[in-house]
Amino acid sequence: MGIRVAVAGASGYAGGELLRLLAGHPEFDLVAATAHSQAGSHVTAVHPQLAGLDLTLTATDAAGLSEADLVFLALPHGQSAALAAQLPESVKVVDLGADFRLQDAALWERYYGGAHAGTWTYGLPELPGRRELIAASDRVANTGCYAATITLALAPLIASGLADPADVVVVASSGTSGAGRSAKVNLLASEIMGDLSPYKVGAHQHVPEIKQASGATSLSMTPVLAPMPRGILATVTARFATSATGDPRAVLAAAYADEPFVHVLPEGSWPRTAATAGSNSCHLQATVDVDSGRIVVVSALDNLGKGAAGQAVQCANLMSGLPETMGLSVFGVAP
Amino acid sequence: MGIRVAVAGASGYAGGELLRLLAGHPEFDLVAATAHSQAGSHVTAVHPQLAGLDLTLTATDAAGLSEADLVFLALPHGQSAALAAQLPESVKVVDLGADFRLQDAALWERYYGGAHAGTWTYGLPELPGRRELIAASDRVANTGCYAATITLALAPLIASGLADPADVVVVASSGTSGAGRSAKVNLLASEIMGDLSPYKVGAHQHVPEIKQASGATSLSMTPVLAPMPRGILATVTARFATSATGDPRAVLAAAYADEPFVHVLPEGSWPRTAATAGSNSCHLQATVDVDSGRIVVVSALDNLGKGAAGQAVQCANLMSGLPETMGLSVFGVAP
Amino acid sequence: MGIRVAVAGASGYAGGELLRLLAGHPEFDLVAATAHSQAGSHVTAVHPQLAGLDLTLTATDAAGLSEADLVFLALPHGQSAALAAQLPESVKVVDLGADFRLQDAALWERYYGGAHAGTWTYGLPELPGRRELIAASDRVANTGCYAATITLALAPLIASGLADPADVVVVASSGTSGAGRSAKVNLLASEIMGDLSPYKVGAHQHVPEIKQASGATSLSMTPVLAPMPRGILATVTARFATSATGDPRAVLAAAYADEPFVHVLPEGSWPRTAATAGSNSCHLQATVDVDSGRIVVVSALDNLGKGAAGQAVQCANLMSGLPETMGLSVFGVAP
Amino acid sequence: MGIRVAVAGASGYAGGELLRLLAGHPEFDLVAATAHSQAGSHVTAVHPQLAGLDLTLTATDAAGLSEADLVFLALPHGQSAALAAQLPESVKVVDLGADFRLQDAALWERYYGGAHAGTWTYGLPELPGRRELIAASDRVANTGCYAATITLALAPLIASGLADPADVVVVASSGTSGAGRSAKVNLLASEIMGDLSPYKVGAHQHVPEIKQASGATSLSMTPVLAPMPRGILATVTARFATSATGDPRAVLAAAYADEPFVHVLPEGSWPRTAATAGSNSCHLQATVDVDSGRIVVVSALDNLGKGAAGQAVQCANLMSGLPETMGLSVFGVAP
Repeated sequence: MGIRVAVAGASGYAGGELLRLLAGHPEFDLVAATAHSQAGSHVTAVHPQLAGLDLTLTATDAAGLSEADLVFLALPHGQSAALAAQLPESVKVVDLGADFRLQDAALWERYYGGAHAGTWTYGLPELPGRRELIAASDRVANTGCYAATITLALAPLIASGLADPADVVVVASSGTSGAGRSAKVNLLASEIMGDLSPYKVGAHQHVPEIKQASGATSLSMTPVLAPMPRGILATVTARFATSATGDPRAVLAAAYADEPFVHVLPEGSWPRTAATAGSNSCHLQATVDVDSGRIVVVSALDNLGKGAAGQAVQCANLMSGLPETMGLSVFGVAP
Repeated sequence: MGIRVAVAGASGYAGGELLRLLAGHPEFDLVAATAHSQAGSHVTAVHPQLAGLDLTLTATDAAGLSEADLVFLALPHGQSAALAAQLPESVKVVDLGADFRLQDAALWERYYGGAHAGTWTYGLPELPGRRELIAASDRVANTGCYAATITLALAPLIASGLADPADVVVVASSGTSGAGRSAKVNLLASEIMGDLSPYKVGAHQHVPEIKQASGATSLSMTPVLAPMPRGILATVTARFATSATGDPRAVLAAAYADEPFVHVLPEGSWPRTAATAGSNSCHLQATVDVDSGRIVVVSALDNLGKGAAGQAVQCANLMSGLPETMGLSVFGVAP
Repeated sequence: MGIRVAVAGASGYAGGELLRLLAGHPEFDLVAATAHSQAGSHVTAVHPQLAGLDLTLTATDAAGLSEADLVFLALPHGQSAALAAQLPESVKVVDLGADFRLQDAALWERYYGGAHAGTWTYGLPELPGRRELIAASDRVANTGCYAATITLALAPLIASGLADPADVVVVASSGTSGAGRSAKVNLLASEIMGDLSPYKVGAHQHVPEIKQASGATSLSMTPVLAPMPRGILATVTARFATSATGDPRAVLAAAYADEPFVHVLPEGSWPRTAATAGSNSCHLQATVDVDSGRIVVVSALDNLGKGAAGQAVQCANLMSGLPETMGLSVFGVAP
Repeated sequence: MGIRVAVAGASGYAGGELLRLLAGHPEFDLVAATAHSQAGSHVTAVHPQLAGLDLTLTATDAAGLSEADLVFLALPHGQSAALAAQLPESVKVVDLGADFRLQDAALWERYYGGAHAGTWTYGLPELPGRRELIAASDRVANTGCYAATITLALAPLIASGLADPADVVVVASSGTSGAGRSAKVNLLASEIMGDLSPYKVGAHQHVPEIKQASGATSLSMTPVLAPMPRGILATVTARFATSATGDPRAVLAAAYADEPFVHVLPEGSWPRTAATAGSNSCHLQATVDVDSGRIVVVSALDNLGKGAAGQAVQCANLMSGLPETMGLSVFGVAP
C-alpha cells in the first residue's frame, strides 16, 4: 500500500493537473479530492480530460483531509492558512498558494492583503541546499509559477556574482490557465484569442517572492497574458555586476548540470513554451546583448507543471522519501 | 533487458510522439530512431519537447532497423512498403502509414496512386475479435487518424443493425498536426489561426478505409482543418436501418464497456478534443436528432495519440505479449 | 445631416461591431448607444478597439431611442419584443435577436420559451424577392448567424429542385463570439483554445428558422464551438431530389451572380472563415461527393458581419433608401 | 479620376493588406499589382479575403509600375533598391522594406548584409516635424513594424528628457504575419499555436532603426513570436534620466494629443493587440514601476496596419496632398 494523499481545491486548473499526475503516480494513492461549489460532482464533470477516473469531489473539510499522509492545497491565495491550521501536525502539507511563501510579513500584507500566516520551507528544489530542506520539512510552500520561471533563470547569475541584483528587468508572458478558472469576461476566449494584454503593470504581487528567491534587490516585472492555455516565457535581463565578466550560459549550465528537470539548451536553441507543455521541465538559454551589453536569459516552463502541480509533486516526493522524479515527465507534449 | 524497438520516420509529428511514449515505456527500449533529411541531428534539434533525451537520429536503413525486435514505421504514405520488404521476417512491424490498410488493391491505387503493396492485420484493437488477431500478427497496419475516430463511433451501430450502412454523413475536423510537418504556405500559422478550412471535399482518400473498417457502404465525409495543433472531432450521422429502433448510446456503451481507452461519456456530456490531448483515449456520445430522426454520434481523440502513435504502441504491446495499456495514458493534458 | 440611428444592446459583441460599422458609415449618424449593466461607461472601457470614439453608453430606454430614425436592437433573445413595443411606429427597427423571425408561434415557444411576439419581415436580402420586401418594411427581423450561413448555401438548391428538402445534414462550426459575451466557465480561453466542442446536439434552436428560410423539411444540424473568435463554417449536405440532375455549383453561381456580398468561389477553391473576417461577405462552394452521391456545399461568413451586424446594416440601408452596400466591406481582414 | 498607384510585392501579407486598403480608398486607383512566383494568378487565389476584387497579379517590372503616380514596394529586405533605381523620378515611392531606412551605411551592412542603398525620408508622421518632411518627399522609407511600435512609445520620453536614452530594455512580441509568408517549418501552425518563442535574441536587425528613430543610445531588445496572426505588443522600460522627474503618461498624452492614430489610453487601461487589429492605430499606456522605479510603457499596434500597410498609405496620403487619414480606419476589428 502506498502513501495516502489528498487534494484540496481539486476543481481548479492546478487541482486538475494534480489529479492527473497523481493518477499516474506509482506510490501516491489519492484518498480524497475536495472542492467548494463543485463538491458532489463526479470528477469528469469538472475535468473531462480525466474520463475513466472514478472519483467524486467532496466538500473541503479538514477531517476528511486528515486521513491522508500528505495534503496538497490548491486553493485561492489567502485560503490555505485557515485550512492548514486545522490539519494535524502529522499530516504533511504542500501549499500551492502564496500564503506561506514570503518571509516578510509586511510585504505579504501589502501585496496580498490580510494577515500574514507564516513562512514555510520554500519549495524550489533546484536552489542550492534546498532539496535537503524540503526533504526534511512537513510543510512546504510551493513556488509561484512566475517565481519558478524567473528564479531558475536568475538565481545562479546573481549567486555567482555575474549579474547585478539591483538592475533586473523582466517581461514574462503567461498562458491563460495561470489566471485560474474564474468566469470573468476578460478571460473569455473571444477576448484572448489574437490578443496579448499586459496586466498589473508596475506592481505585480509576485515581485517580492521573486526577489526573495532569486536574490534580486530591484526588479521591474511586466506580466502579459498570452493566447495559449499553458506556459510561461520569461525574458530576464540584468546588467553585469561591476567588473564582472563571464558567460551567463556557462554559469547556468554549471548550476543545473545534474538537474533532471532544468535544461540549459544547446547554444543557439531558445526555450519555447510549447516544448514544456505537460512536463515538469524548465528550459533555459542565455546570451549577452550586443548593443546594450546586458545579460539576457529566457526561461520557459508549464505554469501548471513545473510552475504548480508538477513542482508540488516533486516536493511531495522529496518529503516522502521517494525518488524526486517519480510520476513526473521530463518531456513535453508537443505539438 | 526489455524489448528492442526502433522508429523509422522519427522526425515527423507522429514520430516525435512515438519517441515520447517510448521514452516512458517500461518494457520497450529504443535502439534506433531514423530520419531522412534530419539524419545526424540530435533529437532535441527536431523535437524540442524531448530536451533531456540523449538520442541522435540516424539515416533510415534496413540493416540498422533489423537489430530491433519491433519497428514502427512512421513514413509518408507509400514509403512503408519498400522499407518493410527489406526487414527480416523475425522483426515485427507496425506501420503507421496507409500502405497496408486496404484489402482492395483497386481502391488503394485509385486513392493513393502506385501499386498496392498488400494487406496487413488492421490495427484497431477495439473491433470485435481484433485484438486477438493483432496479438497473433507480426505485421500490423495501424489505423488512420480519421478512420479510428469515425470507426469507433460507427462500427457498433452498423454491426448491431441499428444504423443504415448506406446513408452515413460525416464531417470531421482535425488539428494541424494531422497534416504533417511539411513546410507549406497553407499550413502556416498565419493562415490557420482564426480559420476553419475544408479540404479534399467530395473525395477524401480515407473513405475506403473507413468503409472497410466500419461496415458503411456509402459515406459522405468532409474533412476540415481546424486552428488547433492536435485533435479530431467527428460528427457522424446515420439513418436508422429500416424498422430498427433502439438507443445508439446504449449500443456504444455496451460495445465499449470493458475498453480502457474508449469512453462513452455520461449522458449530456459531449466529447471535446482538448480532453483527449496527449492521451490514448477516444471519447464518444450519441443521441437521436429530434428534427431529422438521424442518429448523431460525436467522437473525439488525439490524432497523434489514439489516432497514430498511441494506437501503434497499443498494438505493439499486444504483439509483444505485454499488457495492452502499458506506457499509455488514459488521461488527457488539459487545459 | 444624415439619418439618425441608435443601438440598443451596444455592449455585446454584435453591438460593438454595429458601432464600428456605424462609425464608418457615410449616412448614418449614431445618436444613442445603450446598455444594461455597462450604462454610464465610456465606450472604450467596453470596446477597446473603438479607442478614439467619443461615446458614452446610456441606459436602455425607449424614450431616448425614439429620437432615432432607425434603431438596431442587439439584445438577448426574448428581450426585443418588450422594447420594440415601446417604440413609436415612425421609428424603423432592425432586430438582431430571434424574437420576430419565426412564422410559427408554436415552434418559437418550443425552442425559445415564452410567448411568441409576432413575425417581422425576414432580413436576408439575397433570397428571391426579399430585398424589395425589406426596403418596404419598417420592422425587420435580422437572420441568425447560423441561419444566414446555411440558408445561403441551401435555398437555391432546394428552390431549383436539385436538392431533396427532406434529407439535409449540416455540421456548422462557429467562433466564440457567436456565444456572446457572458462570463461562463465553458467560454473561457483556457477551455476553448485547442478545443472543438459540439453543443445542443440533436436539438438546436436555430433549426426552425433555417427550415423556414431555406425550404428544408427535415434537417439534422450539429453545431460545434471552434477555437477562433469569429466565423462560421457550415458543411451542408443533401441528397439529390428524385430524378434531379445538375451541377450544384452552377445553381449557386446563377443564383448569386449579381450579389455583391455572396461569392461562389472559383472551382477548386473552398471557403475559409478567416477570409470573411470583418467583412459582410459569404463565400460558397459546392460539389458532388463521389462515394455517396450527396450534394456538398460549404459556406463561410463572419458571424458578427454577414451573420449579424453587417447584415443588419445592409437591411437598414435598404429600409432607408440608401445603396445596399454603403458602409460595408466586401473584403475580409486576413491573415 | 484619382491618383494612380501600384503595389510591387502584392502576394505577401503586407501586400495583401495594401490591396485591401487601396480597394477602399476614395482617391487611389490601383493600376498594377505585381508578384514574383505568383505572377499570373488571380488575386483571390493568393488572398482569398479579397474575393470580389477583379485583379490579376502581374510580373514585377519597372515599366509597368512606371505608369503609376505612386508605387508601394512591399518586397523582401534588400530587393527594393534595385527596383527603385529603375523607376522614373516622377514616380513617387513608398518602400515598406528596410533598404532606405538607416542613415548609417555601416550599420545597414552589418545587420542586413550587402551594400547600403541610401537613405530616404523616414516615414513616421507622428515624430515632430516629420509629416511635413514626408509631405515634401518623393521617396519615403516606411518604418519597420517593431520600430513603429517602440519609437512611438519611447521617442517623446527621450526627447522630453524624462527617460535615460542609455538604458532602455524592450521585450516585444509579434504575431506571425510579421515573419512573412515563407513556407518554413518553424512558422507552421502546429509549431506556433500554444507557443511563445524568442528569436534573434541579443542581436535583432531592427535595433539600429529603433535607436535612430527614438533617440535611444543603448537598447536591449528581445523579440518573441506569439501565437496570433497579427499584432505587436512592446513593453518598453527605461530608467529616468538623472534628476528627471515627471509623469511619463502625461508626456505621451501631450505628445499625441492631436494625433488621429495614436491613442494614449485612459489611466488604468493597458494596450491590447486585438484592439488594434485591422486598424491604423497605436495604443499606448505608461506608468512607473513601484519596485524598480523604471518607466514602463506598453505599446500595441497591428504589424500589418500601423506597422506596415496602413502606415504606408498614411505616408502616401501626405505625399499626395490628401487628408492624412483617408482610407484608413482608426478602429480595430475585435473580437
